[in-house]
Amino acid sequence: MSENKNFTLAVVPGDGIGPEVTTEALKVLDAVAAQHGVTFERTEYDLGARRWHATGETLPDAELEEIRKHDAILLGAVGDPSVPSGVLERGLLLKLRFTLDHYVNLRPSKIYPSVGSPLANPGEVDFVVVREGTEGPYVGNGGALRVGTPAEIATEVSVNTAYGVERVVRDAFARAQARPRKKLTLVHKNNVLVYAGHLWKRTVDKVAEEFPEITVDYLHVDAATIFLVTDPARFDVIVTDNLFGDIITDLAAAISGGIGLAASGNINPDRTAPSMFEPVHGSAPDIAGQQKADPTAAILSASLLLDHLGLTEAAAAIEAAVTADIEERTGAVRTTAEIGDAIAKRAAG
Amino acid sequence: MSENKNFTLAVVPGDGIGPEVTTEALKVLDAVAAQHGVTFERTEYDLGARRWHATGETLPDAELEEIRKHDAILLGAVGDPSVPSGVLERGLLLKLRFTLDHYVNLRPSKIYPSVGSPLANPGEVDFVVVREGTEGPYVGNGGALRVGTPAEIATEVSVNTAYGVERVVRDAFARAQARPRKKLTLVHKNNVLVYAGHLWKRTVDKVAEEFPEITVDYLHVDAATIFLVTDPARFDVIVTDNLFGDIITDLAAAISGGIGLAASGNINPDRTAPSMFEPVHGSAPDIAGQQKADPTAAILSASLLLDHLGLTEAAAAIEAAVTADIEERTGAVRTTAEIGDAIAKRAAG
Ligand SMILES: CC(C)[C@H](C(=O)O)[C@@H](O)C(=O)O
Ligand SMILES: CC(C)[C@H](C(=O)O)[C@@H](O)C(=O)O
Repeated sequence: MSENKNFTLAVVPGDGIGPEVTTEALKVLDAVAAQHGVTFERTEYDLGARRWHATGETLPDAELEEIRKHDAILLGAVGDPSVPSGVLERGLLLKLRFTLDHYVNLRPSKIYPSVGSPLANPGEVDFVVVREGTEGPYVGNGGALRVGTPAEIATEVSVNTAYGVERVVRDAFARAQARPRKKLTLVHKNNVLVYAGHLWKRTVDKVAEEFPEITVDYLHVDAATIFLVTDPARFDVIVTDNLFGDIITDLAAAISGGIGLAASGNINPDRTAPSMFEPVHGSAPDIAGQQKADPTAAILSASLLLDHLGLTEAAAAIEAAVTADIEERTGAVRTTAEIGDAIAKRAAG
Repeated sequence: MSENKNFTLAVVPGDGIGPEVTTEALKVLDAVAAQHGVTFERTEYDLGARRWHATGETLPDAELEEIRKHDAILLGAVGDPSVPSGVLERGLLLKLRFTLDHYVNLRPSKIYPSVGSPLANPGEVDFVVVREGTEGPYVGNGGALRVGTPAEIATEVSVNTAYGVERVVRDAFARAQARPRKKLTLVHKNNVLVYAGHLWKRTVDKVAEEFPEITVDYLHVDAATIFLVTDPARFDVIVTDNLFGDIITDLAAAISGGIGLAASGNINPDRTAPSMFEPVHGSAPDIAGQQKADPTAAILSASLLLDHLGLTEAAAAIEAAVTADIEERTGAVRTTAEIGDAIAKRAAG
């Protein structure tokens, strides 16, 4: 990958604070790219609430095929209260994740000593959640009958396959193997969701045989939320399904410095399609356009993007710049652009 | 209800620490019953891991029909690692909840000033979660094909009906109406689980019209976990589905003094069958039989039981005794029985 000096990037700024934080992420990306002798040729895609209101479109297939031709995707945030709930999530964000086979939704959590945690004694927190991204209750396999009547019935089907579970479990084990603590925790609810839960449990037990150095444990999702607030330092790599992963990664972000710092990668490890990088936070329409958003999560997402493209030094330069910036935060209010400028300067330096 | 001086109680001590904490809950119940001129005639049911190992039975229908004849059920805890995951949960605990139509799973959360919270600044926390108890992903409507092969597929179906959602939503509104802050928060994930989510949202919006004094808001479950650690004081009454309720009530317990204090009622508000009261915690086999378990959650569950039977003064006496006991906790280690004795003495005094 290191011969490829010119990468193509599809950029989806999206809604709310999405465009603002994306601007800063690209600023920082450019700053390190220059230092590491690579360039990013960008194409911006106007997708999200504005587009939907104007044209009724969420993500036309032809445009998805254009996006597919890029080396990676950087996304800001998607969603607006003016759009019925689910339209943009299902029609745009999840369409990208599912069609481009982003089966590893990677969400690291780290407590920076200088950033306050809502926990009194968080301890040393440094774990990563490997959330499955293409199955589970997110598949959109549901329906409703007699809508709006007293006889309405609505269903949602969680679909789990050995194919889908095994590939994400393997990825999680490989990540655990590369980390010093070598620990993997499966989070599910196999005492109630017995069919899906037993598939997950059996798969982890089976793949574990190939990774004898990894310590494996299992937690029900409800118990996992307890440990995330009483002993988050116990976690190293967590592997879990799409819905449980959604829930626990927001909680993980909250206990480790807040959603303003939480980055994510929607990764296609087989590289059959571009991976997509985005902050865990949403579009926060209440503060949009006011330069109040913290772009750090978007900037750290750009670091995950570089790492995925094999540009590990450039990725590390961003991470180091963010860490240095965070450590010097005084509580003084900075604009979105000021934070981006400060991190870009450090990353380039 | 106040003419009925003799109540019948089905007692299921269960597994692990279940019998120990149940003994203390009954001790306290007897202490206040005597003071309030009522008696509880108890029948104990030997259900759980021991019984399953001995006979292969979880809960025979004939025994369920016996249990049904009582005024209420007190349960300790169910589950043991020696039993395959799901067997006792589905065959015993969930069978009771579903067959006896416990559609309101009531779980109060309160921070006692003297009890440490893992949160640095929890604020004044006093909310109640109304968790739906008879529908959602808990219905057991799933299956698996080609189990153990690379072509395995496992599904779990969340079933939601207007009938089931509306009755629990009405109950939650009525509870909010009776509380000073008069606030109700619906927790769901209606941007992804659009069929079930929209049924819940529409139902809350419709019932809200009959409760003009109630302030209503909506949170996605992932965002709710953030607020539970950053601003739990914002919650008053939360209404949510069976699975989301399971997850957020463990988190709620963790932030408010721990799972040792969290009580719950599985309530049939129509009184077509007895309601069941149990601590939120599990059977904790690692500390079973050692007098190490905190019986407070079981004791508070007995208070919820009294309240449900209309014995509000007796219920309040237990709550006051628990509060007084908690406020004087010094950190000195007490046995399960010592805690029960201390609370029983206060409650009777
Ligand atoms: C916006 C929503 C569809 C999305 C999800 O549920 O995955 C978000 O919460 C996330 O975690 O990226
Ligand atoms: C034991 C289990 C089936 C149960 C549940 O998931 O409801 C428990 O976690 C609870 O919250 O009461």
